[in-house]
Amino acid sequence: MTSSATSSAPAVTLADIQAAAQRIKGHAVRTPLIESPALNRVVGGRILVKPEMLQRTGSFKFRGAFNTVSQIPERLRPAGVVAFSSGNHAQGVAAAAAQLGMPSTILMPADAPAIKVESTRAWGAEIVFFDREKDDREALARKLAADKGAYVVPPFDHPHVIAGQGTIGLEIAEDVKALGVKPDAVVVPCGGGGLIAGTSTAIAGALPGVPVYAAEPAGFDDTIRSLKSGQREKAQPGAKSWCDALLAPMPGEITLAINRRTLAGGFAVTDDEVARAIALAFLHLKLVVEPGGAVALAAVLSGKIEARNRTIVVVCSGGNIDPGVFASALKRAELVNN
Amino acid sequence: MTSSATSSAPAVTLADIQAAAQRIKGHAVRTPLIESPALNRVVGGRILVKPEMLQRTGSFKFRGAFNTVSQIPERLRPAGVVAFSSGNHAQGVAAAAAQLGMPSTILMPADAPAIKVESTRAWGAEIVFFDREKDDREALARKLAADKGAYVVPPFDHPHVIAGQGTIGLEIAEDVKALGVKPDAVVVPCGGGGLIAGTSTAIAGALPGVPVYAAEPAGFDDTIRSLKSGQREKAQPGAKSWCDALLAPMPGEITLAINRRTLAGGFAVTDDEVARAIALAFLHLKLVVEPGGAVALAAVLSGKIEARNRTIVVVCSGGNIDPGVFASALKRAELVNN
Repeated sequence: MTSSATSSAPAVTLADIQAAAQRIKGHAVRTPLIESPALNRVVGGRILVKPEMLQRTGSFKFRGAFNTVSQIPERLRPAGVVAFSSGNHAQGVAAAAAQLGMPSTILMPADAPAIKVESTRAWGAEIVFFDREKDDREALARKLAADKGAYVVPPFDHPHVIAGQGTIGLEIAEDVKALGVKPDAVVVPCGGGGLIAGTSTAIAGALPGVPVYAAEPAGFDDTIRSLKSGQREKAQPGAKSWCDALLAPMPGEITLAINRRTLAGGFAVTDDEVARAIALAFLHLKLVVEPGGAVALAAVLSGKIEARNRTIVVVCSGGNIDPGVFASALKRAELVNN
Repeated sequence: MTSSATSSAPAVTLADIQAAAQRIKGHAVRTPLIESPALNRVVGGRILVKPEMLQRTGSFKFRGAFNTVSQIPERLRPAGVVAFSSGNHAQGVAAAAAQLGMPSTILMPADAPAIKVESTRAWGAEIVFFDREKDDREALARKLAADKGAYVVPPFDHPHVIAGQGTIGLEIAEDVKALGVKPDAVVVPCGGGGLIAGTSTAIAGALPGVPVYAAEPAGFDDTIRSLKSGQREKAQPGAKSWCDALLAPMPGEITLAINRRTLAGGFAVTDDEVARAIALAFLHLKLVVEPGGAVALAAVLSGKIEARNRTIVVVCSGGNIDPGVFASALKRAELVNN
């Protein structure tokens, strides 16, 4: 094997994802594909939703966390795990650790949604807050882990995490085959890129020829721009978004290397488009979607990706949204008449 | 067969429900059973939710409507169907008729939730409003039907309607068997009693020995009182409830005759208990439940039926709730801090 062949070997393979699927079986929820005739009428096509808000801890993050934590050797488990996260990864790691009888310490930004802080605590995690603007969260996590001898579970840029998230792609492939459908596209929310790196790897292996697109919040379209430039681009300076789950400052090294091979492109959506997606998911799907979890659905409902007379699979990646924010989203979408 | 044996023959049998399941297959959504570890922790037991808000038209009513309308002979179909309903049955009938290429006319109370009126119109139905306090809706429906030569689809007191709703019980039985679980109880929302009559008949046949309980809004506990007295009792005079889907004035004749054989009892829940169930379903299940759809969940979460160390199947029967009402429910449950 030449050195160039070695360097181009993918960090995560279909076999890694199949192994992850065996590991999480019976621990993670096997989510279905959900379809609403009323939502289909809105776009004049067919939308198949992968509802990861129904996943344990209310987001897909449990998959990657459990796949990673369950591979920590027995002798290292008593020292526990450390993670840094705005919330969904925090809950995923805390729940995975709790299920394996391990302690967990989670670094969270001081402005994380209350619902995510409380839910993480409820899984028995110790919470340490940091300042999103001033502190270096990775350095803080490394120091905490060194002090405790604990294992750091990174939020996205790790092969085990990516392989765990990829199980979503395997399940999508199984379910569309059972429906006898070949989708025209799969659209996936993208923050650091772990979910879409895993999912697109699984789709490339199990549904070859089906294009996978990233959906990102406007201003945080770093993966879309990185795909174009060929190098890791940062989120736009000063950008703000209420998609708190998707505020990673730039793509991961491993995730971008995968996504450059596997993605067909991407779409950025505005906060208003996300609000409308949340409201239409409420109205027609009867599902609770958080802002970051709704970007792929927003890309379809806004027409950025054409759904007319086509079948589009959309990953809705989480539903951990504060009740007040949810009420505001319904209002913002002008569905609440008061 | 003696005359007494004939009069005691049930109006709906397991075979009728199995036939209904064949009829609705491919038309209705095959809903899963959904479980949330976080919700399980709230009660210290296991809650398996049958999420009928994910059903076509956002409630279970499509099942009974389609089973009934699809049995109308071809030559009578052009005259269409008529139904009276506060909303969910309206949508179910309108959608079933639309799917079979038939016109539909729906009588709705003038105070029906806007979301239900609009959704019914969206299925192509003609809407005629009536006054819930003054008008005799059944007489109005019969007159409308006579004028058009149309078929009246009753909301609950009809064997075909009951058999259609009973498919929920068959699916529950299939899914708990697949999980390897025998539930300790099944709790089902009850208005006129069609959903629970069908579901309990299916459970008696497919999961013998598992008790089925009715959940009703306080003041509209007419089935609970009828089970005790042995005759059809009316809702309490002047009773008010925001469970708009469950305001039938008394049990049906056919439904009560079935429910007297099949039910183990029932529980009445308050509006506040319903608000908390809606909020906890939002928070932990990430599902949108309407007030009437949440009464069975409320009966479990309020402790009226014990869930500690037990497995309880709960039917959440619909999710057609106005955005403003939903926001109020979250606020009422003191989850919205403003």
